[in-house]
Amino acid sequence: MVRSDNRKFDEKREVKITRNYTMYPDGCVLIESGNTKVICSAFIENRVPPFLRGEGTGWITCEYSMLPSSTQTRKQRDINRLKLDGRSSEIQRLIGRSLRSVVDLSILGEKTIMIDCDVIQADGGTRVASITGAFVALYDALSKMVEKGEIERLPLTSFLAAISVGIVENEPLLDLCYIEDSNAIADMNVVMNEYGEFIELGMTGEKRPIKEEELNKLLILAKKGIKELIEIQKEVLGFNN
Amino acid sequence: MVRSDNRKFDEKREVKITRNYTMYPDGCVLIESGNTKVICSAFIENRVPPFLRGEGTGWITCEYSMLPSSTQTRKQRDINRLKLDGRSSEIQRLIGRSLRSVVDLSILGEKTIMIDCDVIQADGGTRVASITGAFVALYDALSKMVEKGEIERLPLTSFLAAISVGIVENEPLLDLCYIEDSNAIADMNVVMNEYGEFIELGMTGEKRPIKEEELNKLLILAKKGIKELIEIQKEVLGFNN
Amino acid sequence: MVRSDNRKFDEKREVKITRNYTMYPDGCVLIESGNTKVICSAFIENRVPPFLRGEGTGWITCEYSMLPSSTQTRKQRDINRLKLDGRSSEIQRLIGRSLRSVVDLSILGEKTIMIDCDVIQADGGTRVASITGAFVALYDALSKMVEKGEIERLPLTSFLAAISVGIVENEPLLDLCYIEDSNAIADMNVVMNEYGEFIELGMTGEKRPIKEEELNKLLILAKKGIKELIEIQKEVLGFNN
Amino acid sequence: MVRSDNRKFDEKREVKITRNYTMYPDGCVLIESGNTKVICSAFIENRVPPFLRGEGTGWITCEYSMLPSSTQTRKQRDINRLKLDGRSSEIQRLIGRSLRSVVDLSILGEKTIMIDCDVIQADGGTRVASITGAFVALYDALSKMVEKGEIERLPLTSFLAAISVGIVENEPLLDLCYIEDSNAIADMNVVMNEYGEFIELGMTGEKRPIKEEELNKLLILAKKGIKELIEIQKEVLGFNN
Amino acid sequence: MVRSDNRKFDEKREVKITRNYTMYPDGCVLIESGNTKVICSAFIENRVPPFLRGEGTGWITCEYSMLPSSTQTRKQRDINRLKLDGRSSEIQRLIGRSLRSVVDLSILGEKTIMIDCDVIQADGGTRVASITGAFVALYDALSKMVEKGEIERLPLTSFLAAISVGIVENEPLLDLCYIEDSNAIADMNVVMNEYGEFIELGMTGEKRPIKEEELNKLLILAKKGIKELIEIQKEVLGFNN
Amino acid sequence: MVRSDNRKFDEKREVKITRNYTMYPDGCVLIESGNTKVICSAFIENRVPPFLRGEGTGWITCEYSMLPSSTQTRKQRDINRLKLDGRSSEIQRLIGRSLRSVVDLSILGEKTIMIDCDVIQADGGTRVASITGAFVALYDALSKMVEKGEIERLPLTSFLAAISVGIVENEPLLDLCYIEDSNAIADMNVVMNEYGEFIELGMTGEKRPIKEEELNKLLILAKKGIKELIEIQKEVLGFNN
Repeated sequence: MVRSDNRKFDEKREVKITRNYTMYPDGCVLIESGNTKVICSAFIENRVPPFLRGEGTGWITCEYSMLPSSTQTRKQRDINRLKLDGRSSEIQRLIGRSLRSVVDLSILGEKTIMIDCDVIQADGGTRVASITGAFVALYDALSKMVEKGEIERLPLTSFLAAISVGIVENEPLLDLCYIEDSNAIADMNVVMNEYGEFIELGMTGEKRPIKEEELNKLLILAKKGIKELIEIQKEVLGFNN
Repeated sequence: MVRSDNRKFDEKREVKITRNYTMYPDGCVLIESGNTKVICSAFIENRVPPFLRGEGTGWITCEYSMLPSSTQTRKQRDINRLKLDGRSSEIQRLIGRSLRSVVDLSILGEKTIMIDCDVIQADGGTRVASITGAFVALYDALSKMVEKGEIERLPLTSFLAAISVGIVENEPLLDLCYIEDSNAIADMNVVMNEYGEFIELGMTGEKRPIKEEELNKLLILAKKGIKELIEIQKEVLGFNN
Repeated sequence: MVRSDNRKFDEKREVKITRNYTMYPDGCVLIESGNTKVICSAFIENRVPPFLRGEGTGWITCEYSMLPSSTQTRKQRDINRLKLDGRSSEIQRLIGRSLRSVVDLSILGEKTIMIDCDVIQADGGTRVASITGAFVALYDALSKMVEKGEIERLPLTSFLAAISVGIVENEPLLDLCYIEDSNAIADMNVVMNEYGEFIELGMTGEKRPIKEEELNKLLILAKKGIKELIEIQKEVLGFNN
Repeated sequence: MVRSDNRKFDEKREVKITRNYTMYPDGCVLIESGNTKVICSAFIENRVPPFLRGEGTGWITCEYSMLPSSTQTRKQRDINRLKLDGRSSEIQRLIGRSLRSVVDLSILGEKTIMIDCDVIQADGGTRVASITGAFVALYDALSKMVEKGEIERLPLTSFLAAISVGIVENEPLLDLCYIEDSNAIADMNVVMNEYGEFIELGMTGEKRPIKEEELNKLLILAKKGIKELIEIQKEVLGFNN
Repeated sequence: MVRSDNRKFDEKREVKITRNYTMYPDGCVLIESGNTKVICSAFIENRVPPFLRGEGTGWITCEYSMLPSSTQTRKQRDINRLKLDGRSSEIQRLIGRSLRSVVDLSILGEKTIMIDCDVIQADGGTRVASITGAFVALYDALSKMVEKGEIERLPLTSFLAAISVGIVENEPLLDLCYIEDSNAIADMNVVMNEYGEFIELGMTGEKRPIKEEELNKLLILAKKGIKELIEIQKEVLGFNN
Repeated sequence: MVRSDNRKFDEKREVKITRNYTMYPDGCVLIESGNTKVICSAFIENRVPPFLRGEGTGWITCEYSMLPSSTQTRKQRDINRLKLDGRSSEIQRLIGRSLRSVVDLSILGEKTIMIDCDVIQADGGTRVASITGAFVALYDALSKMVEKGEIERLPLTSFLAAISVGIVENEPLLDLCYIEDSNAIADMNVVMNEYGEFIELGMTGEKRPIKEEELNKLLILAKKGIKELIEIQKEVLGFNN
């Protein structure tokens, strides 16, 4: 099978992460994965949600949204329907859970790190690009806290990235673009840490159920992709020099 | 490890499915899985959502909600916050996708089967109980369509059930109740068909990431549980006589 | 006139009240009046509404809702229209006022008793069944407060129940079911205490205005029905042994 | 007992009805009952609600609202809470039902008469003043339809008015003003036609339940008041010349 | 050009301001400008918005709304769409800004003056009539604060009024009524103080852009009109005796 | 006075317009005016709003929003408050009116051009940058319609741009950045066509009223700035080659 953009089955799209993309947040990156483009920002706020008040621990939460101009046909704004899009709701919960899994929240103190993932252009894989980009924005925001002396050290337990995999025309593929995704038999979003362990796994058999051996092939592809993404994150953050 | 209700690690709770639980829907069951109780109903409606109008095909969609009295501390109604609960939104999307995966929608004609899963009492696993129960309500509603001559045969490609699995105190367990779920290191919801194939898989590492061998152990438990659930569904529907 | 279910004009439907119907609320009953089924629960909460803060007195309030599957044609959820149904709003105000009328709120302390009436199946008279059932749930919740020593004695001034009456084909009837209610010339909901005094009265001339003598006949029927209901409540609560 | 404004127990406040109060609606009156002032308007619209489409019959519906400046302490606008006030919802349903009860809707054709009752100043009895005033606005709008030849004759079966009665310091009183209403043991709103028949009756025992003989005294007062109101309506509409 | 109501090009409509129009607010006027009628009220409240808490300074804010019966075809209530009308939002921001510009807020203490402008009948120029009327209601509310000794002197720096001007059939006109406004090539709302200085200016070229000399002609007309309005305000407030 | 970024009083910030910024809309530009960055996109849709159906004419409308990460302190999303921000509402109405003023809508046919202005980074002047950028996006979308043969020629009557001016420390300045804007005595947004005519003018005396001679100085500055902006637009669109 020839992929729409001539990639090999186990080849992810080119990923570019631009730090300090806008000037106000404590961390802000533009992540581009092929034609998918997401602004991921992090603001540190001096408050925690009600259920954590007085607990001495921090929180990380996320909001995800697509610009009306980011999709093939214009996407209506949530405010006009007065309802948060169900898909957005699901995605922002996933991003928040994933980021929290690699942060020792007790070190943060009673602060919330507010992550925003705003999709500028959507060509498949926006939720996984958001996670991969948001990790870097979070890293920058936490580093700023260390610099300011608000915390002693980075409260991170691991790097974190995410990628999509799927079965298209019965072939397992890494990193589906939109045209592949909309024809996929099944697709899976995988979030992993730098030790190759699973943090989140979400698989949907869109066109048919999948067998265990297919699942295993997909997991292998995902591992490969996430390993490459974490290398890019490390390079962007100046680790590999 | 001794489980809170003395079950074995691979033992699911007792499941009871009562058909025709209320009198108005085209299908309506009460599913009880231990202390978890959900009313699952199905109404056949002569309309399809806008994106399917004129396509000659049908649709299945779901709404999920918890009664305020179903939880340990009273759960506020969505209408009072004017927002659909994010978790409910995620769950009802999952139930809808799962049910659609085993129905040939093109046979339905331009009808929508509206599924409602209303939790009466929540003790963990409400989303998987909803799927397992909703399948039976759907089966009854479709059977009614066959009886009325609206469709020639049941448009089902397989039975469908779902169960939760998780890792508690480093031990993989089948069918977590609430107390187990809230202490789980990781939990996973699995939706499968009667052929042991995967339809949906959603894993979250709540307390720590999980390794591949742990994932595989969980999948084995899930398979066992779902096989047992489908047997119960078949019995309730009069198949095994 | 022969009634749809062969009852006599002054015969109410069979009423069954199941206490401890679900396990989390402080009081929870299932009331069944013929085919009408309502779950009535009571949670004691350590707060009062803003207008009572610091007054040292308690509050009782109610929310009423119908499950989508409880009606002949599926009832849309309020959250999808982002509006509380006008009829529900009216009914829950009625239930709250009625219950407050038999409780000495000053004895409660700054606590709110939150009543939820969720209709599982609607066959007429859901609001009056809710009041009759909610009284028992309230009784159980208050008894629990006495047991825990939070209050010294039950702060109740009387039992309380409610019933509907109406004129169908010019004949006064007790306890209308749905088919009767939808053909009624006039219907009236009556809330009374155990001393035969009126707490709430709501009459609507649906098809034509009614004369004073008709009103009086309806009041006599209502008294009879409520007397019987209070006997059932007392029996269920173990009074008549 | 001396009433706050020196009225006798069976004396209603002075009522003034100004027709053609504003220039755009098909009927518009300002009704003043003592210090209570309500603008009641009627627009005829060429549409019916969905459930009546194609039935060849008309509809009358009402919206009721209080200006923020109409109450002792400023009343917040509904739009700021994004919720229709529960009391307003109840009142506008009452007004709509009452007006429909004296109109032969089948004569209207597929038209809706949209009634708006906007309270300019509230001193008790705004809902009953609204009904009494809205009837005159409705009369004027229907007359305009007759003039235009849209209907042959007025589709009215009776005049209609409403008044409040209540028990204050154990004494039955006609037409409670705000200060009386807020101290009332019980209050009742009564809607009657010109033949002394009951259309709506809503009684609430605010401070204590009431006995049957009290109820009967209240009904006698209400009859007297409504008779006087209908005379005023007839005079304003030029009947008694 | 002959104007619809025979006014000269530089002649504003007759303006009547009735103080103490309703009895509850701290200031309340009815302003009538030709057929345009607006109730403007002012309540003094013991709170400030969150961004001013602890600052020791006051605030003035405004809400503007049109009654459903105030317009040629009935205007739907905001609450039914669950959205504040965009035009209302714009107007109430304008009124608030205008009034704040002539008040020394630091003298008020931590109080908010809540202005409500409710349009009873709309015939063009409702926003400028609201400003002119609201100033008088504000004056009365502030005077009451002086009388009560809450502030030492009126914290006003100037009188304030507003008027509309526009170009109709290429002719500059003062104070457009609705029929003129809806045919205007351009219209402008001008808010000025008693010294002939500009506080707000909002010009829209509805049908074509306008040239600088046209702009200047409009400003001259506006000055004339506002001068006359401020004289009326002073007379109503008893200044010119 | 030295400006914060050393510009001269009549010097606007550097403006950069990037066409085809994202790939899905019919026109999409990124406009950067100093640190202010806005994505302006245009989608052509085959529908018109209800009030234009069957009129054979088109429509242009706009939505404006700021990303949460675009402001100094994170800006809450509208959907979380369930209310469109009042300022956004005002701005999007302004942009829509401005663009419509230079398009012959009757040539469009029954199409709507949907403009979205999403602020990526806000440093003052976002509404005027939106208008200037949106004009170019509109130009590109209309050109595409000409290319496709949907319309014969561009239905534009003029170029269009906008700029802010204001008085800071009593000095008139062109093109305020955020720090200047927040200290301005008065600011004005001006929308003009290429013939130096006024389309919209909005002046607010934030700190004090302004005199006529100040107004005139501001208008001269605005004219200069807009002339320069229109030159940039023409260059970007390839006119000045």
